[in-house]
Amino acid sequence: MGLLDLSGKLSADPRIQGWLDELNAITDEPPGLTRTFLSPALGRAKRVVAGWMRDAGLDVFEDQAGNLIGRRDCGNPEAGTVACGSHIDSVRNAGRFDGPMGVVAGILAMDRISKSGLKLPYHVEIVAFADEEGVRFQTTYLGSRFYIDHLGELEKAVADAEGVTVGQAIAAHVPEFPSPPARELAGYVEAHIEQGPVLEKKNLALGVVTAIAGQTRARVVVRGKAGHAGTTPMTMRRDALAGAAECVLLVEKMGAAAKGLVATVGQIDVRTPASNVIPGEVQFTIDIRHADNAERQRFCRSLFAEIEKSLHARKLESRIQIPLAAPAAKCSPRLCDRLAEVVEARQGSCPRLVSGAGHDAVALAEVTEVVMLFVRCRDGLSHHPEEFASNEDIALAVDTLADFLANFPLSENA
Amino acid sequence: MGLLDLSGKLSADPRIQGWLDELNAITDEPPGLTRTFLSPALGRAKRVVAGWMRDAGLDVFEDQAGNLIGRRDCGNPEAGTVACGSHIDSVRNAGRFDGPMGVVAGILAMDRISKSGLKLPYHVEIVAFADEEGVRFQTTYLGSRFYIDHLGELEKAVADAEGVTVGQAIAAHVPEFPSPPARELAGYVEAHIEQGPVLEKKNLALGVVTAIAGQTRARVVVRGKAGHAGTTPMTMRRDALAGAAECVLLVEKMGAAAKGLVATVGQIDVRTPASNVIPGEVQFTIDIRHADNAERQRFCRSLFAEIEKSLHARKLESRIQIPLAAPAAKCSPRLCDRLAEVVEARQGSCPRLVSGAGHDAVALAEVTEVVMLFVRCRDGLSHHPEEFASNEDIALAVDTLADFLANFPLSENA
Repeated sequence: MGLLDLSGKLSADPRIQGWLDELNAITDEPPGLTRTFLSPALGRAKRVVAGWMRDAGLDVFEDQAGNLIGRRDCGNPEAGTVACGSHIDSVRNAGRFDGPMGVVAGILAMDRISKSGLKLPYHVEIVAFADEEGVRFQTTYLGSRFYIDHLGELEKAVADAEGVTVGQAIAAHVPEFPSPPARELAGYVEAHIEQGPVLEKKNLALGVVTAIAGQTRARVVVRGKAGHAGTTPMTMRRDALAGAAECVLLVEKMGAAAKGLVATVGQIDVRTPASNVIPGEVQFTIDIRHADNAERQRFCRSLFAEIEKSLHARKLESRIQIPLAAPAAKCSPRLCDRLAEVVEARQGSCPRLVSGAGHDAVALAEVTEVVMLFVRCRDGLSHHPEEFASNEDIALAVDTLADFLANFPLSENA
Repeated sequence: MGLLDLSGKLSADPRIQGWLDELNAITDEPPGLTRTFLSPALGRAKRVVAGWMRDAGLDVFEDQAGNLIGRRDCGNPEAGTVACGSHIDSVRNAGRFDGPMGVVAGILAMDRISKSGLKLPYHVEIVAFADEEGVRFQTTYLGSRFYIDHLGELEKAVADAEGVTVGQAIAAHVPEFPSPPARELAGYVEAHIEQGPVLEKKNLALGVVTAIAGQTRARVVVRGKAGHAGTTPMTMRRDALAGAAECVLLVEKMGAAAKGLVATVGQIDVRTPASNVIPGEVQFTIDIRHADNAERQRFCRSLFAEIEKSLHARKLESRIQIPLAAPAAKCSPRLCDRLAEVVEARQGSCPRLVSGAGHDAVALAEVTEVVMLFVRCRDGLSHHPEEFASNEDIALAVDTLADFLANFPLSENA
């Protein structure tokens, strides 16, 4: 396998922020950035990205779900395909980095490989997935799940606000680019902003993701007894909010004590709230994430037991519902090690992180080995117009992806 | 002073619940009970109450603010007036006892005195106040404050939802009954349901109110830092909700430790809540009540200091606002002792309570000695259609009021 010449420093490459700015201006709902699955803005964004892909020496394809694919065929029909991508849909009033950064970095990495004339023993596909955020259908990974042919009948039956189903939207879509050839995936790599504060705190641009955390979302209903705030003595109360407050602190304390875990109460609602009424019923959510499914489940069991014990001691009733339990996705240790090597060569060390947020890599992990490269972002801020990652940090990610894609460690049985 | 014959047991008097039922059916917003200041339903209710007053041997008057007055003149123009009353306006979708019970009990007490032929050395006025709840003008005691001639220009300028001011509403009102004569108040007694659980727990029908609690209403804003619930490690959080939860428990703990005090967090709001976002800003209310103003203020100072200390330790910012600080109204110790004597003669003992809720007696206390008689209600429930007090308990209150009004202890300088 040849060595890619990486002597040129990319930090000044004006295409990085230029392209991200250009994509940021393509929106369904000006003045903010909002691009949803198969929307007009997504179509316009694809045309722009397709041009960059062609300029980087890639053949452009589009599948029926609107995923845009820039492919570099290695000429061997027996060879596997290494995929690299992220998504170009967005949340409402989004930042410009969450998704597009990984697509832009992938194209620029392939641009360098193409210009180097290096011949690879595998195909490479840079993919701009059409849906990761799930704004239109309140679901996630529609693009990446279609790409791996795992979009099931259940998901296809989900309808948007206008009553159009995922299946109907996909069937009605007219791709602007040719259909992609069949592929056998050899692996997947995705660059993404961290959306958290860890790299910034470590003062490092890049880190490797070892797993994408599994998530349990719980909803707790606490029932006590409403009463007049002026006439009910403190000793005769069954205050649902005081009970819930104790639970919020339990979540914080037990979450902090559990290694590698995060636990958050993000919503709390008093039923018919009034400043002069003792709360009779309170609901709150708990979001629990960990890279290991068994650890997460063990934590949930012991947290829920403590919550019930604490509410029972206050003579409060409780009901705990679990509307969501998503398993963790492990990254390939082999690919993590290789990617970390490349990062270490550039920044001296390479932190390994767990991603607390979901990514297209979760879908891809169902069919192939995956790995992710995290890029430092300012203040951990994401899903917000002020989301920011620096040109220098993204250039280092391009550099790293180029090296990784040029020297992808095919597995022995590939 | 003569002794009233109280040998007849009133428990079976069908007028008590009959009259309360009749008033309960007179509403501005069927099917529930809603009667507001100077509304059509209030006018109809007054006509019905006037009939009962006349039957009880009282002369009926109405003042410009719509307060209905049933007066028994003692014949001596130099004599003082003992007032007894409560209100016949209501909250929205109200219960039938809060207010009307005190008016009905007062009329029935005077009916007994009238029928006994007993001659009193003071005038008595049974008053049905036109506004205590303040639903129409978002203020309170309009009726009782007009009765004592303390309705100021500021209050008269307050407008309702249609832009009509208190002053305009009063000026436009055409009383159906003659104007009352001038009076010199010698004291005020009010019977009211407890709206709390204390008498029920003590298994006693009646109690004497020694004070109507003062109230501080605070609004606390807690500011931390919003963040992604999946990507922000527990050690790097500034969670405004966890801080607020600590405050809720502080309010509960310090409130329970302070004698005669109640403290309640009734509302809590996360700004832009989402289950997967660490709360960056939370607001909550605190309602603090105590019979002694200095005690209440001392408690507030130490509670607010503890709240600020606890939030500061979490690196959270806080701001505490005080939108309301209403002083306590003391009942007359002399009248409390006399009323308690009458109650003790009937039920063996007489608990002394602090009223956590406001009453017309608060307004009357500005100009004369006041006392209140609390009647047990079911489950502490009030401001609700299922509000309930038993016929037997109310009959005992009528009995007590009759004895108290027949033997009112005029003060030495009266």
